[in-house]
Amino acid sequence: MAIHALIFDVFGTLLDWHGGVAREASRLLAPVRPDIDGGAFARAWRDRYQPAMEPVRRGERAWTDLDTLHAEGLDGVLAQFGVEGLTPEIKRELVLAWHRLDAWPEVPAALTRLRGGFLLAPCSNAHVRLAIAHARRNALPWDAILGAEFARDYKPKPAVYLRAAEALGLPPGEVMMVAAHTSDLVAAAGCGLATAHIARPDENGPGTGEAAPAAPVDVAASDLADLARRLGC
Amino acid sequence: MAIHALIFDVFGTLLDWHGGVAREASRLLAPVRPDIDGGAFARAWRDRYQPAMEPVRRGERAWTDLDTLHAEGLDGVLAQFGVEGLTPEIKRELVLAWHRLDAWPEVPAALTRLRGGFLLAPCSNAHVRLAIAHARRNALPWDAILGAEFARDYKPKPAVYLRAAEALGLPPGEVMMVAAHTSDLVAAAGCGLATAHIARPDENGPGTGEAAPAAPVDVAASDLADLARRLGC
Repeated sequence: MAIHALIFDVFGTLLDWHGGVAREASRLLAPVRPDIDGGAFARAWRDRYQPAMEPVRRGERAWTDLDTLHAEGLDGVLAQFGVEGLTPEIKRELVLAWHRLDAWPEVPAALTRLRGGFLLAPCSNAHVRLAIAHARRNALPWDAILGAEFARDYKPKPAVYLRAAEALGLPPGEVMMVAAHTSDLVAAAGCGLATAHIARPDENGPGTGEAAPAAPVDVAASDLADLARRLGC
Repeated sequence: MAIHALIFDVFGTLLDWHGGVAREASRLLAPVRPDIDGGAFARAWRDRYQPAMEPVRRGERAWTDLDTLHAEGLDGVLAQFGVEGLTPEIKRELVLAWHRLDAWPEVPAALTRLRGGFLLAPCSNAHVRLAIAHARRNALPWDAILGAEFARDYKPKPAVYLRAAEALGLPPGEVMMVAAHTSDLVAAAGCGLATAHIARPDENGPGTGEAAPAAPVDVAASDLADLARRLGC
């Protein structure tokens, strides 16, 4: 393999979305509903994420960013938990919970090592402004912000992976997709990209994530520091 | 003004395209034509830049990046200077001259200061890979790479400015376009952006650049450090 760039899934692979949204939900809901479990709230919200992107993927809805989809999903989650009477300001703060996610501990240093050998960009369903918030909060040393908004479509549509490779000036086979989710890697491999799996067995609670890839990949790593070692950085 | 992001023209405003291309052209042409003046060669090449983008702007040609347009223009410049028999490798190296441009001396430190107060992105006609090369060479601390390739059109088309503001999650009036060329700023202002002019009176030789804006702007600065001071960074 002659890999010159790495592109990354973000939610779960690099960032602890579950812990971050749980923390912010607990904090923001405490004044009205201290009984709600932030983790359960985060998981219920995340469950609405894949279906919300479907109309965009099918071309039935124009490009719509995750802040908008999260805001639309929030009303359903609040109804599900029986929460009433939140101000628009609190709802807005809840949507911004997705901007306030922390990286898994090894990620910033491992990315900095990887940057010595590869071009680096997120290839996430996060829009540019959301990716900037993640990068600034966690000092992620991106060369560019690629992914859904750049292609104006959502993974796993091929355009998202292929436009990222094109922007990096590389054929797909010289770009490696890095993700903690086999489905993302299978889609990338279908576009000709190399693939690396990152184990996140406890992505949203013990035993909830993938400890190993469920399909063939080029590299299977225990975390991002392990990937950096395997790639010689 | 409540400005939250600055977007930048790059060629001439932040980078010395003339000096960089002249240096590389002199070096690469020396074995076959040591008599050619690198600066004259650079200016002749740059003269082909605006017309080359026109078919894309008019929608007659699909998105085509500057490496391709530079390569196409190079053959004409070589003919103009009577240069024959260059290998494809040398021609490729000449195109890469545009990747090897140095920033004006005050730029990296001034951008680092500005990053404390604003989101920062290039809004250039350079494509993503070219912008990455500029950023890595000069340690430009971008939050994202926006501009022509993101919009798949060339400035001064409105979409390039408006898509940049959209990606930053801001209304145009909260984004300031920074450029050394009045025409770029007039186009940005027409889209509702705030504007800052940077004086580069010697952009491609003494007295060749704009010492002052030729139309009203929100801020006129003597260089990027001066802009940082004026914006309180």
